[in-house]
Amino acid sequence: MKVLLCQPAAKDNAAWLAHLRGGMPGLQFDEWQPGLPPVYDAAVVWSPPRQLIDEQPQLRALLNLGAGVDKLMALPLPASMTVVRLEDAGMAVQMAEYVCHALIRFFREFDAYERQQREARWRPRRPHVRSEFPVGVMGLGALGARVAQAVQQFDFPVLGWSRTPRDLPGVRCFHGDDGLPDFLQGTRVLVSLLPLTPATRGLLNRQTLEQIQLAGYVINVARGGLLVEDDLRALLDEGHLAGATLDVMQEEPLPPEHWLWTQPHVTLTPHISAQTLRPEAVAQVVRALQALARGEMPSGVVQRDRGY
Amino acid sequence: MKVLLCQPAAKDNAAWLAHLRGGMPGLQFDEWQPGLPPVYDAAVVWSPPRQLIDEQPQLRALLNLGAGVDKLMALPLPASMTVVRLEDAGMAVQMAEYVCHALIRFFREFDAYERQQREARWRPRRPHVRSEFPVGVMGLGALGARVAQAVQQFDFPVLGWSRTPRDLPGVRCFHGDDGLPDFLQGTRVLVSLLPLTPATRGLLNRQTLEQIQLAGYVINVARGGLLVEDDLRALLDEGHLAGATLDVMQEEPLPPEHWLWTQPHVTLTPHISAQTLRPEAVAQVVRALQALARGEMPSGVVQRDRGY
Ligand SMILES: NC(=O)c1ccc[n+]([C@@H]2O[C@H](COP(=O)([O-])OP(=O)(O)OC[C@H]3O[C@@H](n4cnc5c(N)ncnc54)[C@H](OP(=O)(O)O)[C@@H]3O)[C@@H](O)[C@H]2O)c1
Ligand SMILES: NC(=O)c1ccc[n+]([C@@H]2O[C@H](COP(=O)([O-])OP(=O)(O)OC[C@H]3O[C@@H](n4cnc5c(N)ncnc54)[C@H](OP(=O)(O)O)[C@@H]3O)[C@@H](O)[C@H]2O)c1
Repeated sequence: MKVLLCQPAAKDNAAWLAHLRGGMPGLQFDEWQPGLPPVYDAAVVWSPPRQLIDEQPQLRALLNLGAGVDKLMALPLPASMTVVRLEDAGMAVQMAEYVCHALIRFFREFDAYERQQREARWRPRRPHVRSEFPVGVMGLGALGARVAQAVQQFDFPVLGWSRTPRDLPGVRCFHGDDGLPDFLQGTRVLVSLLPLTPATRGLLNRQTLEQIQLAGYVINVARGGLLVEDDLRALLDEGHLAGATLDVMQEEPLPPEHWLWTQPHVTLTPHISAQTLRPEAVAQVVRALQALARGEMPSGVVQRDRGY
Repeated sequence: MKVLLCQPAAKDNAAWLAHLRGGMPGLQFDEWQPGLPPVYDAAVVWSPPRQLIDEQPQLRALLNLGAGVDKLMALPLPASMTVVRLEDAGMAVQMAEYVCHALIRFFREFDAYERQQREARWRPRRPHVRSEFPVGVMGLGALGARVAQAVQQFDFPVLGWSRTPRDLPGVRCFHGDDGLPDFLQGTRVLVSLLPLTPATRGLLNRQTLEQIQLAGYVINVARGGLLVEDDLRALLDEGHLAGATLDVMQEEPLPPEHWLWTQPHVTLTPHISAQTLRPEAVAQVVRALQALARGEMPSGVVQRDRGY
């Protein structure tokens, strides 16, 4: 089996190659470059160019070095090609800590306390009431389920929403379009962990966000395309939303002049809520390649029709 | 049974009285003031003046509206007086979220990301390695045990230290003076949840803090008297410590000119990590008064000889 590594934006491909070769000594791993002969069986990829698919149409499998495959789905992939994504691989715990940090920061007003520190002002604030901050997690997959569990640790009421019915201990679960209004109306802090698909693009818009409880909060850690940023802006201006923490944006890197950088109630990070960790990712990719080599289906295969 | 309410600094004593009366309709509750006749059986207190004890030496019990009794222990209490403290009462979850927020903020460098946001700079940072951030919790009581559990949720290695042996799932437990060096040397992020007693005053000093791992972090949410602030300052200046989050200080309110306000690696809050919540506190005080009325010992009685 011959395998390509194709992540054009990465600066550490040599290290990735070394780890992959160490994990599967029997295999040939080459770094992708334009013009290679079409002799490869699989490719390990992150944001590959269309040229990879054009030049290597014989590839049987793409192994994505991330959980989200929305960019891969935009490529002209042959229908027979198997697309495998990372499942957790050390990302779920990162998501849990990112979301809990943002949630606690909002609930406990730590931003206000930091302002008070800058003014050398000692002023205890009256605590909020925990039961008035139900947290709704959209997407209950590898990442969302872990986040829903972590949030419960802090005794917040937790709701969840998915495409098909899910049953998670301690979580009020809703699903499908029919379940969405009740889920939204029961939620004050909305956490977005949906994949970006034709069904979810722009799902966080004025019409849906207006349904979450007053002085609500939005935490988007999935994909920028899920959120209509202008609608967010209006709802922040109107005070229906108290704030937002966004790790993903419609345009990344976010242009320096974008209003999001300076909106006083928005906290931004540069798509780092759950970073791919090399040891965990290589271990999972190696397991997938071993399954493919045995002629089996690996875990984490993307269902092409639903887009995730 | 006649009960006094004595929290001179509180502004909402009327509400407390109403809740206490509602919780135990058969009892007489009066707000303390100087010069009342010595006819009371118990007092519900927070930071009471010495005058309370001088004028009401017949009190059989003090019910403290907080977990820490260090200030009460400094009063000339008759040896026969029963001192009862709050146990958890809604404070453990607050401590868990406060400590997790500070820990995650340090580990994930969210302060640096906020600086980058102010500069409209999109720059992902290389993630730290989780296993290199063992968290050591000093004090494994009602609050420390819950904190140790919450931190585990985020897959950090967790160590604990107490006076007598404790056994907590997933926590490497140490105890007593003999166990302290190994505990400290295994710790990078030190969380202080000890009561302030003659045995613990000044325990966080140069000699102990030097033993925690390089680029360590201190989170003190217990009492300011546990930490020698000048030693902390020196270790921050020398770079042995990377930073600290302090909710409690030697002098509270912290004077406006104090160096702690402006130390760039110190985050301060005004003693709010776990605030007393009226419904939970009243419920626990009422249970204690009921036990006392039946002639039983309530839960949460302070051992006067050890001071907590
Ligand atoms: N910002 C970052 O650093 C970062 C890092 C990693 C991942 N991500 C994003 O996080 C996303 C989630 O990852 P994951 O591994 O948890 O995905 P996953 O395991 O595939 O779970 C996706 C969840 O979303 C639900 N869902 C999908 N389409 C839906 C729809 N139309 N309506 C309602 N629910 C729908 C699924 O429902 P069912 O349970 O019914 O299938 C499932 O619960 C990824 O797709 C990626 O975009 C971001
Ligand atoms: N900042 C705030 O807002 C705030 C709010 C609430 C409480 N607090 C502080 O938090 C402290 C802890 O509260 P808690 O309810 O968890 O107390 P607790 O249940 O009494 O637990 C105290 C823990 O400290 C250990 N300990 C005591 N003396 C020790 C010594 N000399 N050496 C080693 N370990 C020792 C005890 O060991 P054993 O298990 O062997 O007894 C126990 O594990 C309170 O005393 C209070 O000062 C602060």
